[in-house]
Amino acid sequence: MIVVLKPAAEQRDIDAFIGMLKAQGLGIHESRGVGHTIIGLVGDTARINEDSLRAYHIVDNVMRVQAPYKMANRAFHPEDTVIAVGTAEPGCEPVRIGGGSATLIAGPCSIESEEQLTGIAQAVKAAGARILRGGAFKPRTSPYSFQGLGKQGLEMLLAAKKLTGLPVVTELMAVSQLELFDDVDIIQIGARNMQNFDLLKEVGGCKKPILLKRGLASTVKELLMSAEYIMAAGNENVILCERGIRSFDQYTRNTLDVSAIPFLKKESHLPVIVDPSHACGVSWMVPALAKAAVAAGADGIMTEVHNNPECALCDGEQSLTPDEFAELAAVLARYAAVEGRSI
Amino acid sequence: MIVVLKPAAEQRDIDAFIGMLKAQGLGIHESRGVGHTIIGLVGDTARINEDSLRAYHIVDNVMRVQAPYKMANRAFHPEDTVIAVGTAEPGCEPVRIGGGSATLIAGPCSIESEEQLTGIAQAVKAAGARILRGGAFKPRTSPYSFQGLGKQGLEMLLAAKKLTGLPVVTELMAVSQLELFDDVDIIQIGARNMQNFDLLKEVGGCKKPILLKRGLASTVKELLMSAEYIMAAGNENVILCERGIRSFDQYTRNTLDVSAIPFLKKESHLPVIVDPSHACGVSWMVPALAKAAVAAGADGIMTEVHNNPECALCDGEQSLTPDEFAELAAVLARYAAVEGRSI
Amino acid sequence: MIVVLKPAAEQRDIDAFIGMLKAQGLGIHESRGVGHTIIGLVGDTARINEDSLRAYHIVDNVMRVQAPYKMANRAFHPEDTVIAVGTAEPGCEPVRIGGGSATLIAGPCSIESEEQLTGIAQAVKAAGARILRGGAFKPRTSPYSFQGLGKQGLEMLLAAKKLTGLPVVTELMAVSQLELFDDVDIIQIGARNMQNFDLLKEVGGCKKPILLKRGLASTVKELLMSAEYIMAAGNENVILCERGIRSFDQYTRNTLDVSAIPFLKKESHLPVIVDPSHACGVSWMVPALAKAAVAAGADGIMTEVHNNPECALCDGEQSLTPDEFAELAAVLARYAAVEGRSI
Amino acid sequence: MIVVLKPAAEQRDIDAFIGMLKAQGLGIHESRGVGHTIIGLVGDTARINEDSLRAYHIVDNVMRVQAPYKMANRAFHPEDTVIAVGTAEPGCEPVRIGGGSATLIAGPCSIESEEQLTGIAQAVKAAGARILRGGAFKPRTSPYSFQGLGKQGLEMLLAAKKLTGLPVVTELMAVSQLELFDDVDIIQIGARNMQNFDLLKEVGGCKKPILLKRGLASTVKELLMSAEYIMAAGNENVILCERGIRSFDQYTRNTLDVSAIPFLKKESHLPVIVDPSHACGVSWMVPALAKAAVAAGADGIMTEVHNNPECALCDGEQSLTPDEFAELAAVLARYAAVEGRSI
Repeated sequence: MIVVLKPAAEQRDIDAFIGMLKAQGLGIHESRGVGHTIIGLVGDTARINEDSLRAYHIVDNVMRVQAPYKMANRAFHPEDTVIAVGTAEPGCEPVRIGGGSATLIAGPCSIESEEQLTGIAQAVKAAGARILRGGAFKPRTSPYSFQGLGKQGLEMLLAAKKLTGLPVVTELMAVSQLELFDDVDIIQIGARNMQNFDLLKEVGGCKKPILLKRGLASTVKELLMSAEYIMAAGNENVILCERGIRSFDQYTRNTLDVSAIPFLKKESHLPVIVDPSHACGVSWMVPALAKAAVAAGADGIMTEVHNNPECALCDGEQSLTPDEFAELAAVLARYAAVEGRSI
Repeated sequence: MIVVLKPAAEQRDIDAFIGMLKAQGLGIHESRGVGHTIIGLVGDTARINEDSLRAYHIVDNVMRVQAPYKMANRAFHPEDTVIAVGTAEPGCEPVRIGGGSATLIAGPCSIESEEQLTGIAQAVKAAGARILRGGAFKPRTSPYSFQGLGKQGLEMLLAAKKLTGLPVVTELMAVSQLELFDDVDIIQIGARNMQNFDLLKEVGGCKKPILLKRGLASTVKELLMSAEYIMAAGNENVILCERGIRSFDQYTRNTLDVSAIPFLKKESHLPVIVDPSHACGVSWMVPALAKAAVAAGADGIMTEVHNNPECALCDGEQSLTPDEFAELAAVLARYAAVEGRSI
Repeated sequence: MIVVLKPAAEQRDIDAFIGMLKAQGLGIHESRGVGHTIIGLVGDTARINEDSLRAYHIVDNVMRVQAPYKMANRAFHPEDTVIAVGTAEPGCEPVRIGGGSATLIAGPCSIESEEQLTGIAQAVKAAGARILRGGAFKPRTSPYSFQGLGKQGLEMLLAAKKLTGLPVVTELMAVSQLELFDDVDIIQIGARNMQNFDLLKEVGGCKKPILLKRGLASTVKELLMSAEYIMAAGNENVILCERGIRSFDQYTRNTLDVSAIPFLKKESHLPVIVDPSHACGVSWMVPALAKAAVAAGADGIMTEVHNNPECALCDGEQSLTPDEFAELAAVLARYAAVEGRSI
Repeated sequence: MIVVLKPAAEQRDIDAFIGMLKAQGLGIHESRGVGHTIIGLVGDTARINEDSLRAYHIVDNVMRVQAPYKMANRAFHPEDTVIAVGTAEPGCEPVRIGGGSATLIAGPCSIESEEQLTGIAQAVKAAGARILRGGAFKPRTSPYSFQGLGKQGLEMLLAAKKLTGLPVVTELMAVSQLELFDDVDIIQIGARNMQNFDLLKEVGGCKKPILLKRGLASTVKELLMSAEYIMAAGNENVILCERGIRSFDQYTRNTLDVSAIPFLKKESHLPVIVDPSHACGVSWMVPALAKAAVAAGADGIMTEVHNNPECALCDGEQSLTPDEFAELAAVLARYAAVEGRSI
């Protein structure tokens, strides 16, 4: 970390400032230029908050040289993390996320009935999906909207898992629900909870893979810091998910930030998947975005599939039909193959 | 709600669509124009999700005529809600938020020690603050940053309350902490938890005033929907708080959305306060923004005050000193008086 | 266009409002529901400004049913527009943009010398580029930055065209420069001039292809309206270019809005190309974004290539070397081939 | 400017890099820390582009210490610039913008007729406006919208000036119109032209006051750089105008960035005015924003006033009536008086 002091800073204040930094265990490299004094901090600067340093009246500016995330940082963990899903489940073949393949995750936004879910599960499995998604606890903007089937929905999801052998991913909204997630293979932390730090610490205490969605207005660095929360609490099985951010242009529900894929893959060793359905919010655009995400290097694609989108209780307008999904899966396999990858 | 159907919509599909809407208890007014068929929905449309209607292949567009919030809506509750704080506490004089005054709330970002807190509390009280703020549980972007003193901090806050008679407001981050908040006068829901719907439902179950901060990238309508969650769960004592949003220009930490004040006051009967400290993130700008907020009609101003900003464990760079706060309070009183209000 | 009137609107005012609309040549379809009166406007509503209608005190809301662009609208021109570039130039083979291929455009950000430019031109041609780009007039944020070689740079560009046979594209910043552009094949209108309406009208008066870059904070609909300005002035040869938008996250210079590709292709018949270099601002990320753009359906990719990026007078940090470009072109050809396209 | 080199940078490359910097006339202060080498640049760094330095493969990061604007910078010009308007016009009393007063500028968005304009001009003058605004050349998103009366409108504006003695401000859209602006007192550069650098250079060549509007997605630093363009070309009479920026929340047309007022006043000596009409786009919200702007320290307020907003050819929904303006002017005078200012 580099701290530039103001030209007018007095020696007495500089000494006190340096003393404070040394007391925090940091090494100091001081350099006096013509105008400014520059202080380089050496050591574990992840604990140091830049804004706190800016509070000092002698400080002009602060620049971080090392990223504030450590466990999620590729600099300290050069190899890709590959996360094995469902290995311990009898009847489920292990699925690997990361390290070269573009894994397909599909299923309905909300679980509505056992019949609906198993029908979709069988269809997406046949088309090439390796993991089943489905929401039981649903975060909804309005208290008057359908809030998900809850525990009952979770049971339907586990029944579909048993029937098809597909590992499952579903969203956890509150710590109190965690005891119900024993047989869930991947716990999803939704975009609105990306900085629900108590929830992050809690899922850091289990060993299950965590699918961490980027918040609507979270920077990629904040996403990595939230991954760091989970990892620092003991769980290194984090899958990052780009799902669209808020921008000024609202012709799509959100703006898919496709650049996040190469950036996150470079900065971190964690797998990066993309959810094109929530990004754009309209089913006709999902294939174009899924292809773009695969071409940009995503480790997986998570899409919403519904047997009857017009009657979906949630997000029908962004769901593919099983036939549309099968067509998309086939073309994604061809895009993945361009650089030797598979779905 | 107005639904415009596509010109090519077939009668059979229109009939099925109308049947589906009637089955949800809605009245239907159908109108056939030259090109488009238009359907007006009459009844409780707050339950209807516009996007779900857009999933129908015969639907071209949907326009909401009535706002999706009801309890927070001024249309159904024309008078200003005035929230009494601290009335039941012996030794505390009741403070009223809303209905004409510009209440001052002040205190440190984080509670650091009993000595620090009581010193600040006495200073801000003398300067005109009516409510004491202080964080015990702190949401921090990094797991390596100071996370607040927790339960111990809360005890210090309650001691300061006892000493000064000032009602107190502090942030609740998780349902599990709620049992510690019995003597807290106002529960703050932070910006990052504005759409933590389980937490909203939980605080909807108590009767304490809730200070609900707008999320960094939440629309004013989403803020009102989150207020609606709390109100629908039984607690109508909600104070809305504008604290800056994310924009492309980052010369301030966030962008204070001053227009939110007149908009929220027009759309809702709930009090609206402003936090200029978090909005701009630098103490020298706080007075200008606080004055702007009062002039725009805010029901209160919440600022950070620290006796020694350079040594604050959190957000020192945006904290006023007690002297700066006293000066600001005096000038805010004069701005409030322009249109006959007081602080 | 659908206009919803307020429930309290009086008949006298409604009659006056309808009279005003009829006087503008619009057909009216009036429908009285239980609460609201709804007015459907039939005819050429492109001339009608929604906001003007909202000024009427009896108007509650306005919804546009037909897009405000006509000539750029695919609804009225279903086939893809294919733009032939350089056909009239002896020694240049015609290049077609649109209609299936993913044309590569490459060259330096700024033209610096004849030697530099011809070296790069030959290299990118050998690698597969079909059009040469190079800036002579440069829009720079600072008046103290290099502003381009101007007329002299343009002469170097035309010399490189003559030498290599590649058609050329370069930016026009002011009407007064237009007389110098006679032998330029494609005129680029830069992002900062997307709503310089006088410039748009002026290039609408010539027949050359216009490469219209999306403004940093322009919606896709505003981009189409700017294309409409050019087309309404008589020039239908417009190429749309997505080059990144401003968002709250600034880890890239701009945020590539990959969704704009399928949206613009659906809404309009005009070709859509992508500039990944300006979108991300760093050369290492250009290949990932270029691949994503091709997979999403872009009709072309425009990248910056410099023989010595470290010494570029402008935007060196986002320029590929000729070798990197050759490698990228080869892989883009394979991505384009997945769905039967070529570069 | 501080340049941090990568730990792996080799001495040979560092020497070449330093040689390149020295060749540009910069002084160098080199400092070798434990991990990184840091280079401080001394001299006129305004000409140096940070991104160009980032292109060097040995460079890790660059931090600017001095702002890239010089003439607009308060550091080099501590006193407020006060701009005298209309001094040379016989019959007009000189109006001063900056230095303590909150000058009111009012008039219609578009000039529609002589009768309309003179009526409004007399009304706003009586209410306290010191300068008359009115658009003759109108930048419109759609080519099919009313584009202003042009030269004829300008003549009406000058007639209204003669009649009322009010100095006038109107927008210049193209260099070719400049010859018509001889008797205009303040030339407005609109938001969409804030980075039309040729136009900026051109108005830098005259001595008239320039009202420079901030672009919809321009940072405050870019606004200052555009002012710098005008000043560097010889015209130091620049008035900065905040008029709302684009954000994700679109309940107002734009988001008034009230923080820009104190920031620009601190960074620059130029006057800062605010246009609340374009910021919010709805007349009922204009008074709240105008009051906020005055309280935050704005040197002036520019509002749209129309005698019959419902029939305005442009932006009627955001125009105040003359009576509403008179009421607002009276209350703004009281807000200005709080800290000893006048309108």
